[in-house]
Amino acid sequence: MTVSVVEVSPRDGLQNEAAIVDTPDKLALITTLAAAGLRRIEAVSFVHPGRVPQMADAEAVAAGLPRARVSWIGLVLNERGLDRALAAAVDEVNVVVVATDTFSHRNQGVDTAAGIAAWARIGARAREAGLRTTVTVAAAFGCPFEGAVSPERVRTVLADCVAAAAPDEVALADTIGVGVPAQVRALAATAATEARGIPLRWHFHNTRNTGYANALTAADLAGATPVALDSSAGGIGGCPFAPAATGNIATEDLLYLLHQSGYDTGVDVETLLPLASRLSTLLGHEVPGQLARAGLFPPA
Amino acid sequence: MTVSVVEVSPRDGLQNEAAIVDTPDKLALITTLAAAGLRRIEAVSFVHPGRVPQMADAEAVAAGLPRARVSWIGLVLNERGLDRALAAAVDEVNVVVVATDTFSHRNQGVDTAAGIAAWARIGARAREAGLRTTVTVAAAFGCPFEGAVSPERVRTVLADCVAAAAPDEVALADTIGVGVPAQVRALAATAATEARGIPLRWHFHNTRNTGYANALTAADLAGATPVALDSSAGGIGGCPFAPAATGNIATEDLLYLLHQSGYDTGVDVETLLPLASRLSTLLGHEVPGQLARAGLFPPA
Repeated sequence: MTVSVVEVSPRDGLQNEAAIVDTPDKLALITTLAAAGLRRIEAVSFVHPGRVPQMADAEAVAAGLPRARVSWIGLVLNERGLDRALAAAVDEVNVVVVATDTFSHRNQGVDTAAGIAAWARIGARAREAGLRTTVTVAAAFGCPFEGAVSPERVRTVLADCVAAAAPDEVALADTIGVGVPAQVRALAATAATEARGIPLRWHFHNTRNTGYANALTAADLAGATPVALDSSAGGIGGCPFAPAATGNIATEDLLYLLHQSGYDTGVDVETLLPLASRLSTLLGHEVPGQLARAGLFPPA
Repeated sequence: MTVSVVEVSPRDGLQNEAAIVDTPDKLALITTLAAAGLRRIEAVSFVHPGRVPQMADAEAVAAGLPRARVSWIGLVLNERGLDRALAAAVDEVNVVVVATDTFSHRNQGVDTAAGIAAWARIGARAREAGLRTTVTVAAAFGCPFEGAVSPERVRTVLADCVAAAAPDEVALADTIGVGVPAQVRALAATAATEARGIPLRWHFHNTRNTGYANALTAADLAGATPVALDSSAGGIGGCPFAPAATGNIATEDLLYLLHQSGYDTGVDVETLLPLASRLSTLLGHEVPGQLARAGLFPPA
């Protein structure tokens, strides 16, 4: 069985850190990620540098990316971001639509309907330009401001996104780390009807220690439709506009779980292990990933 | 659906901490645990105080336990420990048999076969004295010294334990936190044949971020035979004789996962949340449980 892992530490990881990592250090991180065998890497976010100063060097990072073998992803929220993504020549764009109006306003200044309309314009232009597109439904498992998000709401948002412009991939995000496997199963069923035949991607945070169980559940649900899982080296990251949204699931811990469960990912965990301490040094705090501390088992 | 949670912070939690918590603080912790609705609490370990100084006050702790409503568990490794458990009038004894000879020697100075023979003597006497008994197969998911532990080895150890003396409960322990859900399912099938009809208990550590996925898998397997899950407030604990075996799964994080998944435990999470910071203060370091930092969801 194969599961695809999408590395998001350079983007979702670093954008939530107080420390601003400079461009050469970002590129060194990215080089190690690619060397480990990660083949899709969300490397930059084309958002307003005043809002997310950690991503202000997006163009410089994009210019330094090694072009071979990896599909490079840039996050965009509007057409201005798409213009930058096109100029930077990334391979894919990831467009975020937030499932709740309150969080959508805080995150990108518009309500959900306006976010979907933006996705429609971005998706059409990106496709025309030959970029792969992902639409991510954020806060699909719960909202830090509105609380529980009904499955019916996610169903509507997802259906409206797909109707607005068919993406190459749909992602469902537990932006604030509140979900459990039963929700993963329910949302997978929703995606199977509302985004039929479109590959599914999942984005989990481990804020309440449910992220790895959710990820394995999503992997176990992979059938005819491929499944991709987002993760972040060291487990760094979160969302600057969602309180207490710390901690993507850590790539190395996810890989341990997947490999021990019989999944093939094509990624070499040992190459990634030194990143935990390197990131701890760069960011000035211990990272939440645990495998680098505990070690592989059985020991290599 | 109901799952029973067995609280182990006063025993497995505190015995792995460098700081020695004094008896009144232990009893204050235990009082909060009982107030939250936990009905089985592993409160003490009747082991040699020279080997585990954190448990040297076992008799004093046992003497201070409120007798109503809770079934108090003491861990014992030999008949001397059983004598102390009987004198201290605990309700249950938990007897550890380590699945590998190397780890068994390090943990309790005898090989696995001698551990099973000790269980036979302890089990028979405990039952005669009217105590409930659990036999725990430790390192059932992997050994820090011998590496992978074959399912066949666990099958044999489990069968030999049950043949030696029928316990009221069988526990399977991932002592060093290396297991994944596929192993939980395989070992549950082993227990269903080798310990047929005997209630099953699971002991997970989150050392490599697989503990909560394992626990939910075990809960999902509960059918005709009841399932109990060990956890430790704040996620404190480990094993002093197993390298890098830090981190039981945290009771409050486990409860969040179980409750959001539709399980009833009878335990009030909010009552437990203040324990994380109290334990951090007592132990001099932040505890690994995350729910107390992130907060319940939806917010209460």
